[in-house]
Amino acid sequence: MTDSFQLLQGGANGPRRGRVSTRHGEIETPIFMPVGTQATVKAMTPAQLDDVGAQIILGNTYHLNLRPGSELVAQLGGLHKFMAWPKPILTDSGGFQVFSLAKLRKITDKGIAFQSHIDGQKIFLGPRECFDIQRNLGTDIAMVLDECPPFPCDEKDCRAAVDRTIRWAREFKDIAAGEGWLDAGHHAFGIVQGSIYEDQRKECAQALVEIGFPGYAVGGVSVGEPEPEMLRQVAASLPELPADKPRYIMGVGTPPQLLKMIALGADMFDCVMPTRLARHANVFTPNGTINLRNERFKYDPAPIVEGLDNYTCQHYSRAYLRHLVMANELLAHTLLSLHNVHFFLDLMAQARAHIEANDFESWSHQWIETYDLGLND
Amino acid sequence: MTDSFQLLQGGANGPRRGRVSTRHGEIETPIFMPVGTQATVKAMTPAQLDDVGAQIILGNTYHLNLRPGSELVAQLGGLHKFMAWPKPILTDSGGFQVFSLAKLRKITDKGIAFQSHIDGQKIFLGPRECFDIQRNLGTDIAMVLDECPPFPCDEKDCRAAVDRTIRWAREFKDIAAGEGWLDAGHHAFGIVQGSIYEDQRKECAQALVEIGFPGYAVGGVSVGEPEPEMLRQVAASLPELPADKPRYIMGVGTPPQLLKMIALGADMFDCVMPTRLARHANVFTPNGTINLRNERFKYDPAPIVEGLDNYTCQHYSRAYLRHLVMANELLAHTLLSLHNVHFFLDLMAQARAHIEANDFESWSHQWIETYDLGLND
Ligand SMILES: [Zn+2]
Ligand SMILES: [Zn+2]
Repeated sequence: MTDSFQLLQGGANGPRRGRVSTRHGEIETPIFMPVGTQATVKAMTPAQLDDVGAQIILGNTYHLNLRPGSELVAQLGGLHKFMAWPKPILTDSGGFQVFSLAKLRKITDKGIAFQSHIDGQKIFLGPRECFDIQRNLGTDIAMVLDECPPFPCDEKDCRAAVDRTIRWAREFKDIAAGEGWLDAGHHAFGIVQGSIYEDQRKECAQALVEIGFPGYAVGGVSVGEPEPEMLRQVAASLPELPADKPRYIMGVGTPPQLLKMIALGADMFDCVMPTRLARHANVFTPNGTINLRNERFKYDPAPIVEGLDNYTCQHYSRAYLRHLVMANELLAHTLLSLHNVHFFLDLMAQARAHIEANDFESWSHQWIETYDLGLND
Repeated sequence: MTDSFQLLQGGANGPRRGRVSTRHGEIETPIFMPVGTQATVKAMTPAQLDDVGAQIILGNTYHLNLRPGSELVAQLGGLHKFMAWPKPILTDSGGFQVFSLAKLRKITDKGIAFQSHIDGQKIFLGPRECFDIQRNLGTDIAMVLDECPPFPCDEKDCRAAVDRTIRWAREFKDIAAGEGWLDAGHHAFGIVQGSIYEDQRKECAQALVEIGFPGYAVGGVSVGEPEPEMLRQVAASLPELPADKPRYIMGVGTPPQLLKMIALGADMFDCVMPTRLARHANVFTPNGTINLRNERFKYDPAPIVEGLDNYTCQHYSRAYLRHLVMANELLAHTLLSLHNVHFFLDLMAQARAHIEANDFESWSHQWIETYDLGLND
């Protein structure tokens, strides 16, 4: 467990280069994890994910538990084999989706009772269930069950959520350790909650560190709060975490947000943004996003991003991609998702190189400025 | 023009092995052509088409003329470059879609006036327009403008359609030859019409042969008539065509139908069936089609077809593919289309090998029996 993260460069604060070791290979950090909610990164094959440099993907425990069910996945050989993705997989706890998707939730100290948003089935998710599902899936990095308070959330309700988050983290760790699952090389990350209350964030982080995890996440960010507030919570949480463990910021973010969080010492990110925006014809460029439905791309012979080394930019004009979008062709989703996911992964590769070259801050500052100026174009 | 087809084995009747030479490479026949209606074979990248052995694809003149427009494609460097498909492309004449999709059609000896099914735009399609569009697209094999009579169609109406088909074929050939387009290595295929009237089929074929084309097609089949009728029309048409030119049966068919037509001396086929059925979760096996929505595949660890050498069958269980279908995941369309297109292309590769081995008839008989028995499963 202790050797599962190597900090190659940097410390507890500021940009860091690291390497996470898992049962399915190593991950170079900082890294972005494409989201494969239902055992597929939407519209992309694993071969295409591999081509664009994906090192690790995320699966959603809530969705996979409902459909096709974690026992089915286990019976078919685990999530890696099931979806033909041989590299690392991180699964979330399912808690976040219970709060955003499920009906008739009831939370107690034991866990969350809810109804499936698909068929109304009654389900209970406590630390034991949360662990069992992720063990069935065969995940490399499991997330402990947490309670993600909504935004806004008053201080007292947040306190209750943080207390339960710590309680469930301890129970989850005991179960995972008790079954020899952690010693077998799997990871379980604790999750720092606390909404916009920095003191609660710090206390939560300290409590989790005391329990001891192979890695830590900051959850409950990008849930509707303004960006400065989000960065403030990340900045409050990270210094409480040990330098020699990976830090994962959950569910973020825009390319500039990723760079700003790397500057604060974050290592891992996931977000549906690249694939979701792609399905709405929004694609990323160093000058911000563009929407390919726009008439001005009708005859544009240029690729989305000149010189970017992915299948879409190597082969296709904006004019062709716009045509696919306007004609409602399925291939649009594949080609635009592939580009957007690659854009995020390429940005992480650039970040790693600039951390190694000790010029992350100046490069990142310039990159964000170019991106933000382009957005106002 | 005379060297653009090599008949490697066989003659005017019976199964044949051939090779069509085009400006974008050679095609081994018998061959199946995946349909790329709107400058994309739905849900598949050109790299995936290449992986499953596609040698030539089909584009639809009617659709491409409406959207994005053939001038736009020409301005972007032609259809090959536009859609990043470097191998041969055949485009149809657009006539068939005018009859099946467009509104307010009016046919005269000069051509067809109609309204776009997308935006109501008024369009005229005569032999000149039909040629210009396909020249703009940069097609390797153009189809002459024809009139495809509906099924059923009385003898007199059919006669009028055949007369116009011959007239338009002559005009098309004159235009294409006059502009040096045929001498530059492009192909134009004449189309045999005649509905269920064998005498009209024969006359049409003879008239087209007199005009002289680098290849010939049989159109107006698989338009609702029973299979025996369809085979009877193909059998009536092919012997009238020269042995040393390729024969293309338009818009067919099921795997057994392809084999039955190869037995009659057909060389080329196209059909939307593999991609369309894929999008409805129907996949091809040597024992007929199966629908992956079926509950019995829920835990099925087997690939769609054991040992079939394509990405889908190499990597995925029926259980996983069923999950993608039930969860409405876009990747289902890609993986199932890829399998189905490969199944058709693999069947053609097997057919070519058995023609070469001189056992096509016995192999084909056995193959069809297995397939048809499976369907009744
Ligand atoms: Zn997000
Ligand atoms: Zn068809």
